[in-house]
Amino acid sequence: MKIYNNSTAPNPRRVRIFLAEKGINVPYEEVDIVKAVNRTPEFKQKNPLGTLPVLELDDGTHIAESVAICRYFEELYPEPPLMGLGAKERALVEMWNRRMELHLFLPVMDAFRHQHEFFKGRLTQVPEYARVQGENAEKSLSWVDQVLSDRFFMAGDNFSIADITALCAIDFARVSKIRVQPEQKHLSRWYAAVSSRLSAKA
Amino acid sequence: MKIYNNSTAPNPRRVRIFLAEKGINVPYEEVDIVKAVNRTPEFKQKNPLGTLPVLELDDGTHIAESVAICRYFEELYPEPPLMGLGAKERALVEMWNRRMELHLFLPVMDAFRHQHEFFKGRLTQVPEYARVQGENAEKSLSWVDQVLSDRFFMAGDNFSIADITALCAIDFARVSKIRVQPEQKHLSRWYAAVSSRLSAKA
Repeated sequence: MKIYNNSTAPNPRRVRIFLAEKGINVPYEEVDIVKAVNRTPEFKQKNPLGTLPVLELDDGTHIAESVAICRYFEELYPEPPLMGLGAKERALVEMWNRRMELHLFLPVMDAFRHQHEFFKGRLTQVPEYARVQGENAEKSLSWVDQVLSDRFFMAGDNFSIADITALCAIDFARVSKIRVQPEQKHLSRWYAAVSSRLSAKA
Repeated sequence: MKIYNNSTAPNPRRVRIFLAEKGINVPYEEVDIVKAVNRTPEFKQKNPLGTLPVLELDDGTHIAESVAICRYFEELYPEPPLMGLGAKERALVEMWNRRMELHLFLPVMDAFRHQHEFFKGRLTQVPEYARVQGENAEKSLSWVDQVLSDRFFMAGDNFSIADITALCAIDFARVSKIRVQPEQKHLSRWYAAVSSRLSAKA
């Protein structure tokens, strides 16, 4: 078993933090995205969409999509639970993870890839959309600050995959000059707490 | 328990089909999105993002996000499984559902909401992005046609939530004049099969 990884991209980091929180060691194989190794025909046999990370199982199965990889390990190693326990909590963690994905992670990614040199020729860039999504990401930070006024972590009392998604989004947002504001007290408190966990260095 | 629903929007339909496949009856309460009832302060107490569907539990908990609602029912009523059985299959269904969301459902939604009158004033429209995402949706249909050349359903031998996501995306794409092409034989075969299930009318 191994994971095709990239050390600088935000999606592979979600899986690395998830596994560090579980205490699971899986070998990582670095894929050079600057040299577009992830877009070669050979890599596309593992993942036709050319995205990272990709988990390779010993039977040759390839699992792409960060959350799908996390789901695999959550099923095999339930402790500590990072996707909730029981129907209601699992649904609520899924809800908060998706809110962080759709309203924070995705806008942060779009703000970068629709204007940055790196993505020229890799997708059809719409710079105006980068600007709009940058504003949406900033609005979401303001909303998330309010959300965190009544809870310690994003989905409630327990650290979960929703915190990992939000942390990776916020750290990657810096490249687009989108930052947590000092007046966002609850978000700042949360950010300091999740950033100081050992897993954040994974 | 009830579900705040809208009969014409694509996301609530995902949950209705999921529940129909499971044979679960939950009362639906129609929310008028044309009159923006989902954007009133009262509704935003249920879901601050104002999206539909929203599941209301008897203890007053609100669960938004279609897949989070499906997750809740999958946990409580595992038969028939629509999110996979066992770690590997669950991860693969999650992967295929996310591929259908990110590369088909989302582009189809963007092609509509970034140019249609209905969303004027509801979000900052970028018509150029609507055009690009419309093209991306068409490319994805072509890719999905290839995917379906070696399997009956989107994630393999069994009908799953990934089929529901793809079906709802494709049916909603018609409003943006994006359609399955006659030469897409595998996709056409799949579309006829999933459309003829009783659940498709839910």
